[in-house]
Amino acid sequence: MSSARITALRRLELFQSLPESGLARLTRNAVTLNLPRAADLFGQGEEPEFLHVLLEGGVQLLGGASDGRETVVEVVRPVDCFILAAVLSNEPYLMTARTLEPTRVLLIPATELRQQLAEDPQLALTLLATLSKQYRDMVRNIKNLKLRSAVQRLGCYLVTEFGDAAAGTEVRLPVDKKLLASHLGMTPETLSRAFNALRSHGATVHGGSVTLTDPAALRALCQPDNLIDILHPADEAQ
Amino acid sequence: MSSARITALRRLELFQSLPESGLARLTRNAVTLNLPRAADLFGQGEEPEFLHVLLEGGVQLLGGASDGRETVVEVVRPVDCFILAAVLSNEPYLMTARTLEPTRVLLIPATELRQQLAEDPQLALTLLATLSKQYRDMVRNIKNLKLRSAVQRLGCYLVTEFGDAAAGTEVRLPVDKKLLASHLGMTPETLSRAFNALRSHGATVHGGSVTLTDPAALRALCQPDNLIDILHPADEAQ
Repeated sequence: MSSARITALRRLELFQSLPESGLARLTRNAVTLNLPRAADLFGQGEEPEFLHVLLEGGVQLLGGASDGRETVVEVVRPVDCFILAAVLSNEPYLMTARTLEPTRVLLIPATELRQQLAEDPQLALTLLATLSKQYRDMVRNIKNLKLRSAVQRLGCYLVTEFGDAAAGTEVRLPVDKKLLASHLGMTPETLSRAFNALRSHGATVHGGSVTLTDPAALRALCQPDNLIDILHPADEAQ
Repeated sequence: MSSARITALRRLELFQSLPESGLARLTRNAVTLNLPRAADLFGQGEEPEFLHVLLEGGVQLLGGASDGRETVVEVVRPVDCFILAAVLSNEPYLMTARTLEPTRVLLIPATELRQQLAEDPQLALTLLATLSKQYRDMVRNIKNLKLRSAVQRLGCYLVTEFGDAAAGTEVRLPVDKKLLASHLGMTPETLSRAFNALRSHGATVHGGSVTLTDPAALRALCQPDNLIDILHPADEAQ
């Protein structure tokens, strides 16, 4: 494996504390895949064959209903791995993984991961840390869906994503509005209404870009919360 | 520790594959707590000091908003442990744990768990299995909330809970209706309307009891799904 690849993998918490030999062994039979936009990496219900590590691009994890409808459960950005729980439990994926743009993923064979896991206690500890974080992300997701209005969800998303940008700077939404609506658990029409509602409370949208005109007002209205959102220190200042 | 206690702990997947010595060591400094109904075991935002193992009774895990509103994220029944991810990552609880009835819990000091974890690879593997299951439960929860109508959520809950009971048998709801509504992500009024809607589709409610008059009709309407619900083999028969 190239040293550039190893440097990239070291950015992933999962691999940070693994010794060089453990990382080399784990990725020995890994393959890299380059995919176009809108390609399915796997479908829900399929047996997990690989641990997927996202190196470049973007992936959405979709939950599907039996009637074919789909919802975005999570958006994955590099460098991150998905979906560890299915691989570890060797049970069918509960979500479909679809690329958002041209994407590069590293596929680590699930059997290799499980075998090395049985022999390398350090790997088990790093996997526990990663899985704990992924579990907590899902709990935050549920609290966000069940405790907040659509306007509040959108406002907290904007504060979390763009709270670091200076007031008045125009920034691009990282995903299109249809996907954002699904991610936040609302229809595109509700998302439009929520953007309208925020216009006089510190955030305006133009096409695919957003300007936080008054971040403090937005925070006051939407009440971002460390136990739901993942806040940067600056976001917590009121 | 009494042999009855050890037998109880063996029912928990987490402890099934641990050798006697590992289990004895892990529970060496554990204490048992008997609590009345409506007691908080811990509050969200607090630092985790113990892994909680529910031996008897029932516990609800609640997510709270900054304005004080709460929602039921999960209901825990014996024997099960909660909330492993906070204990392992040593980060503040994202949920509050409150008893639903007189409850008996075993408290395993978090520091002991983490220490034994670093020394006992077998424990790490059992924790990974438990945490994978807990992660997957949360994904199912999100899919249920985002992909289904209130009527469909209630119908699938009834099939999952009572699908094994013979058609026409009256069974008691395991939680009161206010808590059930919160658990299913709806208001008590919406829950009432959903019960009314199901009357002509295979399920009737009287007070705190339910009768599945026509389980096949209920399944046909609500479409329970193995990748959202946790189905028994009988539930899957159409």
